Amino acid sequence: MRHIVAALIPVLMPCLAYGASEGRPPGRWEKWSAREGLEPKRSYSRKRNTWTMSGNGRPMRHGGWDLHWDDAKPGRWYRFEVHCEATGIDSIQESAHAELIFWKTKDERANWFHVSFEKTAAGRYRFSSQAQMPKDAIRATARLMLRWTGKGSLKWSDPTLKEIAPPSERKIKVAIITGRPPGTSVEANMKFMEQLIREAAKEKAEIICLPEVITTWKIKEAAQSVASPIPGKETKVLSRLARELKVDINLSMHELDSDGLVYNTAVYIDRDRGIIGKYRKVHLAVGERWKGITPGDDFPVWETRFGKAGMLICYDNVHPEGHRILSQKGAEVIFLPIMGDPRAVGNRAYQKWLEIMSVRAMDNHVWMVVCQNNGDRGVIVRPDGEVIAEVDPGNGFAMAEIDLNFRYDSWIGSDFLNRNWGERRPAVYRRIVEDK
Amino acid sequence: MRHIVAALIPVLMPCLAYGASEGRPPGRWEKWSAREGLEPKRSYSRKRNTWTMSGNGRPMRHGGWDLHWDDAKPGRWYRFEVHCEATGIDSIQESAHAELIFWKTKDERANWFHVSFEKTAAGRYRFSSQAQMPKDAIRATARLMLRWTGKGSLKWSDPTLKEIAPPSERKIKVAIITGRPPGTSVEANMKFMEQLIREAAKEKAEIICLPEVITTWKIKEAAQSVASPIPGKETKVLSRLARELKVDINLSMHELDSDGLVYNTAVYIDRDRGIIGKYRKVHLAVGERWKGITPGDDFPVWETRFGKAGMLICYDNVHPEGHRILSQKGAEVIFLPIMGDPRAVGNRAYQKWLEIMSVRAMDNHVWMVVCQNNGDRGVIVRPDGEVIAEVDPGNGFAMAEIDLNFRYDSWIGSDFLNRNWGERRPAVYRRIVEDK
Repeated sequence: MRHIVAALIPVLMPCLAYGASEGRPPGRWEKWSAREGLEPKRSYSRKRNTWTMSGNGRPMRHGGWDLHWDDAKPGRWYRFEVHCEATGIDSIQESAHAELIFWKTKDERANWFHVSFEKTAAGRYRFSSQAQMPKDAIRATARLMLRWTGKGSLKWSDPTLKEIAPPSERKIKVAIITGRPPGTSVEANMKFMEQLIREAAKEKAEIICLPEVITTWKIKEAAQSVASPIPGKETKVLSRLARELKVDINLSMHELDSDGLVYNTAVYIDRDRGIIGKYRKVHLAVGERWKGITPGDDFPVWETRFGKAGMLICYDNVHPEGHRILSQKGAEVIFLPIMGDPRAVGNRAYQKWLEIMSVRAMDNHVWMVVCQNNGDRGVIVRPDGEVIAEVDPGNGFAMAEIDLNFRYDSWIGSDFLNRNWGERRPAVYRRIVEDK
Repeated sequence: MRHIVAALIPVLMPCLAYGASEGRPPGRWEKWSAREGLEPKRSYSRKRNTWTMSGNGRPMRHGGWDLHWDDAKPGRWYRFEVHCEATGIDSIQESAHAELIFWKTKDERANWFHVSFEKTAAGRYRFSSQAQMPKDAIRATARLMLRWTGKGSLKWSDPTLKEIAPPSERKIKVAIITGRPPGTSVEANMKFMEQLIREAAKEKAEIICLPEVITTWKIKEAAQSVASPIPGKETKVLSRLARELKVDINLSMHELDSDGLVYNTAVYIDRDRGIIGKYRKVHLAVGERWKGITPGDDFPVWETRFGKAGMLICYDNVHPEGHRILSQKGAEVIFLPIMGDPRAVGNRAYQKWLEIMSVRAMDNHVWMVVCQNNGDRGVIVRPDGEVIAEVDPGNGFAMAEIDLNFRYDSWIGSDFLNRNWGERRPAVYRRIVEDK
């Protein structure tokens, strides 16, 4: 990497103008490019407190400004923020890129992170990131880049680094239930599950997860005869139970809507607020399709009391798109009631089933909480693909503590949650939303 | 499932009008819907030889016509074809659906397949499918459906079932090479690889695969100093070698383009035609980005002499989108030169690396042919996730026969290649191409 050191421009803005809670401007800055020959045009306006970069007519520029905070303190947590005005840029993800870098020496990184962004107005974006300065770091740098384009311009303004409190702990005890309900009636199935829910609550579970279409499991009548509205009789029983036991509960069940359509619907019930999430299975199993179950058309993410979560159901797991979308939307946990996987056959059937769960977790840096029907093994998989809980076959449950602050690091630095989303290239993926 | 049997309409079109090579029209037909209450409006026009279905104002219809061929012969191969004119339909994949079903009894399937489609003109589509009638089947049925919409209409015309020859065998011997080239010069690396290529060719390899950036591997100079144009000196040497040894060769190497930009580029060389495919790495590794390598922006698929193939490079494997797009475009094999995977760490490092390869293969029903650098294990993974070849660490190669006609069946019928693409719901995936 090559640093092109610009003449140091005197910093005239008095730091006194910024309170501690306001964040501090950089102490100095210099030009940077990925290598000689890739530089964009760059300028700095003291008056406007802006760092500008633009295409110079040559393709695929990759460079910008390095802004330094030499007074950042090792071990402390910081929030970096900068505003960006983009003109003539096709994709912000591609071409307006920022990284927060902590240096061990002048050239060696202690750690680094992609800075994420959100749109604040037409052509305007807020870039921000929170990170801990490593104990062996000597400096914090915000690298602001025009990247992989030869046109358009970016005006970055008001960069600040602000010390913040370390993030608070976010751990949840999650129970995954399996079992073989009698299947004689919805009421009998509900009673069966209530028993297991009570046992899991006794063990201090905070979220209790049930398998797929569990209220109508093994019932012989057609789904449309035994499906219920949501909210309806079954969710009322479960909401009461959630309130009584001070737990959250999720499951999938057959839903009858006001048009007479039947869905396989996942429900997330908060102990106080009742139903806070409803998801209608998007990828129906073959048998469901042929029997006239109707699919959903959205992958919603919900704010639970613990963090962001979404649900998928069984055959959804065959298509990686659902997990991707939930995670893009910020889901930290995916609850997945499931009967099996048509690829999990042969000698390595269970192994393959586990591999799929593990790779879904790794690809999206998400917790996979999987409840299998019929007394089969359910699992809780960490974002690094490690199975941390597995329920024994039969009627019962397993429990594990989920740490929502868990980050899956790698030798390259940053963490995989940050890198996964910072390094995606959605502008190149358009073919995915076309028919085959 | 409920079959609503319509009065049999006399079939007046004489079969004599169709030669054997032309395909035969159905002998009879009846109405079908997924269940009572989901029927669309339907009509049949003898004059126009069309079966029509349309929304009736109620949401999410799911039904249409079953067209029967009672004279189809067990064990024979057939091509089914029908034309579809769509009006007011948002998504063909969602709402114009056809299945080819072979019945064992009146209600029990022997096997079945989604019928794929291609656009022939505005609002017009050709649906077609090839399949073998199972030996225990008594009848072939084409099920033509309006699905999951309450609006628009479909006019299906000229359905035919035509006996065809069984598909011919398509097997290839593929060699995956690994090794530690000296890294003293591009020429020395080329010599090193030539030796291994000659050995693999002696063992009758038909495609020989090399690892990532193998021409400049371990060379200390910056990539821009040692990169070559493509075509250029190195690809000329490899093309000559391919011609001499009667093999295809693929690899990745540093490419210098006419703008002075440097790419990590995969090249596929046919023995007679020379370079038939070039792919520029889309997802750069962190180090590449920081050193000013430029990314590509396309996932091309090539017609090799054996079948359709595409390539990805190393860090591309972290993002499932590339594999998805190549497979959507019809790739049967993905060649992947790779150094490692940042998620493959800890006790289960190699196991995790394998799991990722295995799930990529399963998710997309594609052969994964993976060459690792630095004398590390490469693998060939079958579309059902089974590793069928693994190269020993060190300098050498492994070889396996790849059967491009391999299909990964499941207990539900059809095969997973057919089901994977027939059951995707791209209309619901739009969030994937947005920034996080």
